[in-house]
Amino acid sequence: MNLLVINPINSDRFDQEDFKYFSGLLNQGTSLEIRSLEKGPEAIETYRDEAEAAPYLLKLIEETGVSCDGIMVNCFADPALRAIEETAPCAVIGPGKAAILMASLLGHSFSIISTGRANHNRFLEKVELLGVGPKLRSIEQIPISVSELDKEPERTEKELLRAIEKAQKAWAEVVILGCTGLRDYYSRLDKQTELTIIEPSATALKLLENLISLKSK
Amino acid sequence: MNLLVINPINSDRFDQEDFKYFSGLLNQGTSLEIRSLEKGPEAIETYRDEAEAAPYLLKLIEETGVSCDGIMVNCFADPALRAIEETAPCAVIGPGKAAILMASLLGHSFSIISTGRANHNRFLEKVELLGVGPKLRSIEQIPISVSELDKEPERTEKELLRAIEKAQKAWAEVVILGCTGLRDYYSRLDKQTELTIIEPSATALKLLENLISLKSK
Amino acid sequence: MNLLVINPINSDRFDQEDFKYFSGLLNQGTSLEIRSLEKGPEAIETYRDEAEAAPYLLKLIEETGVSCDGIMVNCFADPALRAIEETAPCAVIGPGKAAILMASLLGHSFSIISTGRANHNRFLEKVELLGVGPKLRSIEQIPISVSELDKEPERTEKELLRAIEKAQKAWAEVVILGCTGLRDYYSRLDKQTELTIIEPSATALKLLENLISLKSK
Amino acid sequence: MNLLVINPINSDRFDQEDFKYFSGLLNQGTSLEIRSLEKGPEAIETYRDEAEAAPYLLKLIEETGVSCDGIMVNCFADPALRAIEETAPCAVIGPGKAAILMASLLGHSFSIISTGRANHNRFLEKVELLGVGPKLRSIEQIPISVSELDKEPERTEKELLRAIEKAQKAWAEVVILGCTGLRDYYSRLDKQTELTIIEPSATALKLLENLISLKSK
Amino acid sequence: MNLLVINPINSDRFDQEDFKYFSGLLNQGTSLEIRSLEKGPEAIETYRDEAEAAPYLLKLIEETGVSCDGIMVNCFADPALRAIEETAPCAVIGPGKAAILMASLLGHSFSIISTGRANHNRFLEKVELLGVGPKLRSIEQIPISVSELDKEPERTEKELLRAIEKAQKAWAEVVILGCTGLRDYYSRLDKQTELTIIEPSATALKLLENLISLKSK
Amino acid sequence: MNLLVINPINSDRFDQEDFKYFSGLLNQGTSLEIRSLEKGPEAIETYRDEAEAAPYLLKLIEETGVSCDGIMVNCFADPALRAIEETAPCAVIGPGKAAILMASLLGHSFSIISTGRANHNRFLEKVELLGVGPKLRSIEQIPISVSELDKEPERTEKELLRAIEKAQKAWAEVVILGCTGLRDYYSRLDKQTELTIIEPSATALKLLENLISLKSK
Repeated sequence: MNLLVINPINSDRFDQEDFKYFSGLLNQGTSLEIRSLEKGPEAIETYRDEAEAAPYLLKLIEETGVSCDGIMVNCFADPALRAIEETAPCAVIGPGKAAILMASLLGHSFSIISTGRANHNRFLEKVELLGVGPKLRSIEQIPISVSELDKEPERTEKELLRAIEKAQKAWAEVVILGCTGLRDYYSRLDKQTELTIIEPSATALKLLENLISLKSK
Repeated sequence: MNLLVINPINSDRFDQEDFKYFSGLLNQGTSLEIRSLEKGPEAIETYRDEAEAAPYLLKLIEETGVSCDGIMVNCFADPALRAIEETAPCAVIGPGKAAILMASLLGHSFSIISTGRANHNRFLEKVELLGVGPKLRSIEQIPISVSELDKEPERTEKELLRAIEKAQKAWAEVVILGCTGLRDYYSRLDKQTELTIIEPSATALKLLENLISLKSK
Repeated sequence: MNLLVINPINSDRFDQEDFKYFSGLLNQGTSLEIRSLEKGPEAIETYRDEAEAAPYLLKLIEETGVSCDGIMVNCFADPALRAIEETAPCAVIGPGKAAILMASLLGHSFSIISTGRANHNRFLEKVELLGVGPKLRSIEQIPISVSELDKEPERTEKELLRAIEKAQKAWAEVVILGCTGLRDYYSRLDKQTELTIIEPSATALKLLENLISLKSK
Repeated sequence: MNLLVINPINSDRFDQEDFKYFSGLLNQGTSLEIRSLEKGPEAIETYRDEAEAAPYLLKLIEETGVSCDGIMVNCFADPALRAIEETAPCAVIGPGKAAILMASLLGHSFSIISTGRANHNRFLEKVELLGVGPKLRSIEQIPISVSELDKEPERTEKELLRAIEKAQKAWAEVVILGCTGLRDYYSRLDKQTELTIIEPSATALKLLENLISLKSK
Repeated sequence: MNLLVINPINSDRFDQEDFKYFSGLLNQGTSLEIRSLEKGPEAIETYRDEAEAAPYLLKLIEETGVSCDGIMVNCFADPALRAIEETAPCAVIGPGKAAILMASLLGHSFSIISTGRANHNRFLEKVELLGVGPKLRSIEQIPISVSELDKEPERTEKELLRAIEKAQKAWAEVVILGCTGLRDYYSRLDKQTELTIIEPSATALKLLENLISLKSK
Repeated sequence: MNLLVINPINSDRFDQEDFKYFSGLLNQGTSLEIRSLEKGPEAIETYRDEAEAAPYLLKLIEETGVSCDGIMVNCFADPALRAIEETAPCAVIGPGKAAILMASLLGHSFSIISTGRANHNRFLEKVELLGVGPKLRSIEQIPISVSELDKEPERTEKELLRAIEKAQKAWAEVVILGCTGLRDYYSRLDKQTELTIIEPSATALKLLENLISLKSK
């Protein structure tokens, strides 16, 4: 089973670290390739970034997708997911969609932690489009920008715990880490709360393996 | 007041006719420019077409949008509308959004007539995202492709009337002509039914004038 | 194009000022008549007021409506709108319905500012009936009664800005001024916030012109 | 316990028969008065009829309501119910609201049988306003007008059974007889179907007794 | 008319007091029997408790239900209600369902007061399943466990009034006492607030009488 | 990784065959145990069956669950799932919940194929409780009882294809085989339609492996 993970940005600076992270999650016999875009946005923070990434994503998949069994676009925003689903010759998944549905599986209700005010409505629309709007309790923001998440990890962790506490007060049972950059905090957070924490990219990768193995039965 | 209408396709073959049609609808003192994309899809029929059009739309608006007071993307699918709203320096409107909300204003419920099976889910998602899902009664298809609409106008009209009848049976009070190519049938249909018919591009253009004049108070 | 604006109260004390306000908004060639009820409530603040106004509204329209192209009932509560839509021989609009749908057009979500606690449920029902309940973020009250709005304009403005701030915290992108008496604060508020402000009666009047001109194509 | 039943029409031609019907349903110790309007519509078939009846309903209640413990407006359309609830000095109920909520109590989902096409949207809005829209399976019409229901009772019964069958195919478990004139068919229908049949006016009267006795505890 | 009230717990310690309470509510001619389970949970506080009570409830009804006209399971959680509805040879009602629908009848919106954090999601699911989710404003908790409610009645009353105040701020018009143990506070609370208070078990019992008398017409 | 699959019925007659089927789906290193109930219903076809199975399920899990990493209750109805989630010391999944959420992941909308009329409302409630009601297009029945599914496999296949066709006409993109007994038709159906087919028990088992491996990171 060959998987393709695409970082939908114009730089390969996360590719190596991502390869290491995702490789540790795969079943035996699954191989992995990581790619980023030749052009496009530096990061996905707005609707415009999503629009700018889309054609390069589609082009990359057209060129590379044939040889793989499944594709994951490695960004919680799931840029261009509908267009990719329409055209890819194989299974496709996005961390946003995967995490939101897994959250609905694991609890009565969930919250999302986000790193920027601008994400609020984009994330809300994603939840509504999946039809699980009534299960969303809150979108909690931490006051640290994506690029500064790792500057003071202890402060970041503290803010994340504070956000989790607010989610719990809003009656969420599951909390989604709504940003790839929060991935490394997963284990520490998971140990310090009774809520279920979801790391979207790992969730999506494992679901992708599932979809492929179920299809090939 | 200067308006910019963009045909989100890679050809200017409709620009002249559109200019004539839209000019007839404008208030005194409103001027109009029509543009199409330098590159992009031939037509907007899939999520992929929308994705392919997006960056060229954004680029055109960046280059041209400064000098206008309002922009309409002339396609019922409203490609890249969220990204344009985010970045345009002026009022923005799409025929899909305009028509769906006007339909909610004019009746208890509405139906959309579409020309292709592939549109069904894209149109449904648009309605759901606007929050008026419960007002949609049906999406009726006519068995004629966009490119053949004008080959046998009488047959097209007959199929449209049949679709309107089906919408009425589904309890719609308003019917949206969900394709720019159906524009010329508006008057004839409007006379033959008691349902309210909406022609999205005209509706959007007049709403755009409104938005601008209300803003400039 | 002849428009009829009806103040659904038993006094003509606002008619002259309203005529001036609305006249400034009309397209060239549109004429305007303002009327109030011979009998009925002094103001529309309860369901009962709406019920009391209804038959006098219907009677006035029966007598006067024939000679006009469109009717606007000048009250955010849209009293008797369904009955008027059913019977009027021309286009009909209400500021509440017009503002709520325009808010859905202009943002992901909206709030309404109201002047009295009793309005809360009446306004909520109006939003739900239009089907856009999920887009409503909050109904913010200011602690000033309608009749006192203009006694201390600076205090009113301050309270309105506070309400807008609360709406923004509730993630609204658009704020509707849910009372005709707030009309004169529109421009000042619009300049002091990044949210989009909607003045319902102006919005309704311009939409009414639209509906008529689209119909007469 | 004194109950007031109001026929919201300008004639007392049903009052005597209604008195007999409702008297047979009351608990021991409950007394009943029936009244109709001095002016107003001949029947409630449109939004306009509801609006025309409202002020006369409110006036009658103001004059008569003081001396009673509960009021029922005897019409499935529940004309002016919100205004009456707001002003009446005692418990208030409407057959429409009572029947729809009782239907939600008695089954997973329900249908309404109506006698006129014009009722469709008015009934739909009523269900949506109560918040139980997702429980409504269908609104089934019988092709007999209210005034002709009793001309050929056998034909009426046959049409009603046909409508019940259609409701069952739409997966309704409960069927509401959405017209006071269908009251006399209740027992015969109830025996011929496994669905639960609801007769709204009887349901409302018994609920009204409940509300009063619970309140006076 | 013979009613059977079942306390779905493994002890008869409330049976005598309940008999007294319910007897005071019945119409003349209605007789009442109270039963509890031979085995099962001590109280209903979790999904597991509901599951454990279910087979003993069904067994008791099979043995006893034949001779009665209606059954009420005396617990706000309505344990096993769907299964009982499916199998009982007579009318069936649960206090939770009865109270939630009565709340929808009596106001625009409602809140529930609960005594334990664990109830939150179970109560929320119950409201959503009845389809009236949009009418629920809040689930307010009081910080007193069920077993301690009567230790300091004044403190309990104070906490209940505080919860009612919070419900009112959340715009509820009706408040449901979501625990059988709060029954004795009903009258005192009802006098101290303008909101409508609902005591579920009394509401259910009276509705049950209704259902039976309507059915036997 | 040790998984426990429970057939929630009072017989082990499917255990051997199920072991074979599920074993073929597992990752390397996953072991599997299959158990059925000592007592309880013969099959799960009603709410009552679910209630009867519940305490034996909970007892079995209490006795056996300690030694496993994950539990799947092998029935599309997910009997007692909430109670099991509350009490099990490990990951828990049900085929119904897993299939419905996977369907939401894989398409815009889905249908369920069921074998008995009585399932309709039970399945509908399940979908609504998960919050994805708006994504459900239809519940299609085949006119063959569970026990007769394998008597004439060709007829069953034909009926299933007919049901899939009806689901497609209702605009479903995904079809869930809503009965364990339809499992063996999966591959043949999947090849004959462009819709995505979901076999719930396989889907649940693979998701369970996922949940465990993500948790143990």
